[in-house]
Amino acid sequence: MSQHAWTASVHHDGSLAYVTPPPHTLGHTVRLRLRADLDAPITAAYIRTSPDGEQELTAMRRGADVGICQWLEGEVRLHMPRSHYRFVVATPEGNWALNAAGITRHTPTDAQDFLILPGTAAPAWAADATFYQIFPDRFCDGDPASNVRSGEYRCYGRPVVARAWDDLPHQPGTGEEGGVEFFGGDLAGIAQRLDYLQDLGVNALYLTPIFTSPSNHKYDVQDYEHVDPHLGGDAALAALRTAMDARGMRLVLDIVPNHTSATHPWFVAAREDPHAPTAEFYTFDARPDDYTSWLGVKSLPKLNYRSERLREVMYAGPEAIMRRWLRPPYRIDGWRMDVANMLARQGESQLGHKIGRAMRRAVKAENPEAYLVGEHFFDGTSHLGGDELDAGMNYQGFMFPLLRWLAPRDPEALMGRAVTDAAPLPTEALVAQWRAYLASVPWQVALHQFNLLGSHDTPRVLTVLGGDVARLRVASALLFAFPGVPNIYYGDEVGLLGGADPDNRRPMPWDPAAWNGDIQAWYRGLIALRRSSPALRQGGIQWLHAADETLAFLRETAEERVLVVARRAAEVTWRLPVRAAGLANGTRLREHFTGASAVVESGALSLRALPGTGVQIWRVVE
Amino acid sequence: MSQHAWTASVHHDGSLAYVTPPPHTLGHTVRLRLRADLDAPITAAYIRTSPDGEQELTAMRRGADVGICQWLEGEVRLHMPRSHYRFVVATPEGNWALNAAGITRHTPTDAQDFLILPGTAAPAWAADATFYQIFPDRFCDGDPASNVRSGEYRCYGRPVVARAWDDLPHQPGTGEEGGVEFFGGDLAGIAQRLDYLQDLGVNALYLTPIFTSPSNHKYDVQDYEHVDPHLGGDAALAALRTAMDARGMRLVLDIVPNHTSATHPWFVAAREDPHAPTAEFYTFDARPDDYTSWLGVKSLPKLNYRSERLREVMYAGPEAIMRRWLRPPYRIDGWRMDVANMLARQGESQLGHKIGRAMRRAVKAENPEAYLVGEHFFDGTSHLGGDELDAGMNYQGFMFPLLRWLAPRDPEALMGRAVTDAAPLPTEALVAQWRAYLASVPWQVALHQFNLLGSHDTPRVLTVLGGDVARLRVASALLFAFPGVPNIYYGDEVGLLGGADPDNRRPMPWDPAAWNGDIQAWYRGLIALRRSSPALRQGGIQWLHAADETLAFLRETAEERVLVVARRAAEVTWRLPVRAAGLANGTRLREHFTGASAVVESGALSLRALPGTGVQIWRVVE
Repeated sequence: MSQHAWTASVHHDGSLAYVTPPPHTLGHTVRLRLRADLDAPITAAYIRTSPDGEQELTAMRRGADVGICQWLEGEVRLHMPRSHYRFVVATPEGNWALNAAGITRHTPTDAQDFLILPGTAAPAWAADATFYQIFPDRFCDGDPASNVRSGEYRCYGRPVVARAWDDLPHQPGTGEEGGVEFFGGDLAGIAQRLDYLQDLGVNALYLTPIFTSPSNHKYDVQDYEHVDPHLGGDAALAALRTAMDARGMRLVLDIVPNHTSATHPWFVAAREDPHAPTAEFYTFDARPDDYTSWLGVKSLPKLNYRSERLREVMYAGPEAIMRRWLRPPYRIDGWRMDVANMLARQGESQLGHKIGRAMRRAVKAENPEAYLVGEHFFDGTSHLGGDELDAGMNYQGFMFPLLRWLAPRDPEALMGRAVTDAAPLPTEALVAQWRAYLASVPWQVALHQFNLLGSHDTPRVLTVLGGDVARLRVASALLFAFPGVPNIYYGDEVGLLGGADPDNRRPMPWDPAAWNGDIQAWYRGLIALRRSSPALRQGGIQWLHAADETLAFLRETAEERVLVVARRAAEVTWRLPVRAAGLANGTRLREHFTGASAVVESGALSLRALPGTGVQIWRVVE
Repeated sequence: MSQHAWTASVHHDGSLAYVTPPPHTLGHTVRLRLRADLDAPITAAYIRTSPDGEQELTAMRRGADVGICQWLEGEVRLHMPRSHYRFVVATPEGNWALNAAGITRHTPTDAQDFLILPGTAAPAWAADATFYQIFPDRFCDGDPASNVRSGEYRCYGRPVVARAWDDLPHQPGTGEEGGVEFFGGDLAGIAQRLDYLQDLGVNALYLTPIFTSPSNHKYDVQDYEHVDPHLGGDAALAALRTAMDARGMRLVLDIVPNHTSATHPWFVAAREDPHAPTAEFYTFDARPDDYTSWLGVKSLPKLNYRSERLREVMYAGPEAIMRRWLRPPYRIDGWRMDVANMLARQGESQLGHKIGRAMRRAVKAENPEAYLVGEHFFDGTSHLGGDELDAGMNYQGFMFPLLRWLAPRDPEALMGRAVTDAAPLPTEALVAQWRAYLASVPWQVALHQFNLLGSHDTPRVLTVLGGDVARLRVASALLFAFPGVPNIYYGDEVGLLGGADPDNRRPMPWDPAAWNGDIQAWYRGLIALRRSSPALRQGGIQWLHAADETLAFLRETAEERVLVVARRAAEVTWRLPVRAAGLANGTRLREHFTGASAVVESGALSLRALPGTGVQIWRVVE
């Protein structure tokens, strides 16, 4: 081993193999464990906590060795609602600190300590879910009678347009693009396709907004109290719920608490009358036209959470919007919260976290198992401390760096952004970003992060990857192997293509001839793999390799160890060191996709069988 | 240059050369600047802000080149009370992000963005101060009439003991150690020695507690409203204030808001009577003996800040304790807050930051220029966001890692701690820790951090360094060259020795024969150097080297550039690369301590003149 190479084997990640399983209770004790190579020169180890801000070092004791690993363990009391801890490992070569960001010779700040939140539970079902995201107008037209008809009404000054299912969304500049074109998908259509989804293996749906709104995307809500009649109205949602219940499927809806449509009666009244009951729901500098709106888009006036009355209506009151959809007959299983990054933030008034926490309390009071996912294109970790959102749409902590690593061009370029990256991300940088974001949230949140490869807001993954199916296999396998909840954007599983919005919202093809059967079979296999693997759903993560064009990590529970290896280009790394993961010489592994067997030799696993671009998932079999 | 070596030259640190000088106002615009090597292949650069949580990229323009440096600049609006930003630098080799933690190829979280706090000012005087910490019982006996006499009263069950000035504090086990022995120092003594301090160059004093208390250290306060009569009472403080005013010196006192003495009348009443007005100031599980105290020390019952009435008395009310000492005739210039890490924190009730912010508001309402320094032996950065403390006693962000690098034994060993480090800190780890703590606070706070090499709570620095004066020179030069406010623990400047408490509280010797004149002259020189150097007081910091046994950094203002080099052992690094600091070949520098001259050649400065253990401070002269 090179100098201090043993430090790579000192591991803890907050997962089940390392911490007494939840629920965790304030004032109670948890057992914490640490794994290290038998050769690591550890003379003592301590759990470092900070009850009420004062350092406490609790000596750990040596447990029974297992294979080439020593295990250390100790107990600490959960003294605070946010009980953070790290480890201090003493050796003759000096002391090291291990926190969620890794092991360091110096004393780190507390910011990336491991974190347990006694009394705060994430919805247990979510970590076992495979989500499927549907843009309702584009998934399936189950009831043509409810379809929007061309010219039926005007949306933001333009007549609405009905489109044929086989058409493509209009490109910008045609006058019919954007929110005004309708393909006729609806909730009845989703209900009709539940067999398809169940066969695929999906067990949870996330629907983009369905409440009454003039546009096809419905992010400009006009009435939070009713499902849009063109999608089938409230009755269709109740029927969908019943049909999903029969299949044990979960349903998450999209709420837009940041702004309304300018056609919402709240805003119409507020604009006309400064004394209207809803006048304080918005922020006017001068009536009628000078008001705060989402990114300056005047059709989307921003809601003003300094208003106590708005809080009552939106989430706090007994009949509040965010509460009532959790009740029968709809009983939705959670909310995806639009623009969570900007919610309740207006310059000098930054109420975002306060309102976010209050929304959580309201929703969890209705259903403690509700799942709260926030939209955040940037760093959402400040909302993910455990007392606000259960998860973020994990663009920065999973998807964006992965695609910047794997795609031939920066995904931003496909979206026409002014600032794009001239070179793919190095493997080291990909893993550095993943690690940084994982270390910034409690492990409980990491396991519930909403991972994705694309959404209605980004170009489709296969298009981003230049149509390269081998790269799609790498990306999608990582989606199912990474800590967090995988979400498939409708159609990705059959190889649907599409550039930036609106091209990424093409109608779902239902003629199997239009499907890429290989991709579909691959996705079905990944879903089944994850369902069969406790380690992929609930296991911890240990980083093993990030160099050249290859990355590798271990997912681990007490009963299962899975080694994930991904490569984007020619074979540079062909011997993967695995001793730090506790895999002794002679350990036999079986590769999931190929069925190949391999044995650890000289502390390493041979990657000869791995193609230049490809992924391997190895299960330890003995 | 090796691959991407130019990234080391991309610099910004929030200091005056890089940001429009304060005051910063909400809604106003600031200009931000970025420096990079002329050869850095930058094709575009952007300021990355997040107004209300949405990313905004503001293009920077290329300013005039200076020497071997390109400068980029741009303006952004301070949209939020906490306006954070970083930079994105685009090159043909890919995009880089620059935040306070450094430059990365991946997209970091926002946690270590640069931070401007419009409307929040630190006390301007503090950054120009050199502090001197006095433990009043041990500095000078100005009025023997006020001395504690042996047996005069009992302190925690033991008779108090008067000691002779030339004695050493008793070691533990004698029955006379700890709080009960008194040497007779007082405020009149401090007033008598102001000439000495002024001659040394000191312009600010920090006194450990002086309010009425039975012990010599007075951290067990019995009456917050009066100066202890054995120190001279209120009149002596007023007189000291007057004497210091005449010399333009600042005065910071020590407040203990976390707990009181068990002999405080508040506690005596609370213990006897659950209906006493002060009963709610404390936390009783059962009267009289089951109550919450500081770390379980029953003589120090913990104050309970869930009590609104306590908040009124301590800081919020118009005549509150923390307010009235800021008023005439005392007009103190700030508070050192004892146990700031634990204040208002009691298990499930974690009010620390809330009370800390409220204390700041109260103190700043009395005097916006008051300086608030918190005691924190661990990671205090969560209190240092700019809206709570102005500074922490910078043990973790400066002193501890420095001494762990420089001392022959872990300083913890001298304190008899159970967990000590078997090896000195590597240079890389020292700089990693310094950088991590600097990156976790706004630049404005970094410039006001209370740096030190020891205090009444730690063994004396010369003792920690094994009596090695060469190492003391390195440590003390870094104290004066590091961003922040230097504080000298009384007597360190004359080479006073002392192990752990109480040995670190020996009486100050006033016979010059007992002084180490070389050390004293060295300190006098450092104080003068700092006074003469805007870069050391207010300049930014750029890290240049941390390898082998040598570290180097640049301090920089628009008018001055100073290069600091420190080494703890044999010459390994003898050519210091300085091109990343913008120092072109041919640049002439003069070394402060030796007067030696040197010229940059081939991008490097020769360190031949630097001894194995030593420090150099180079000023750019042309």
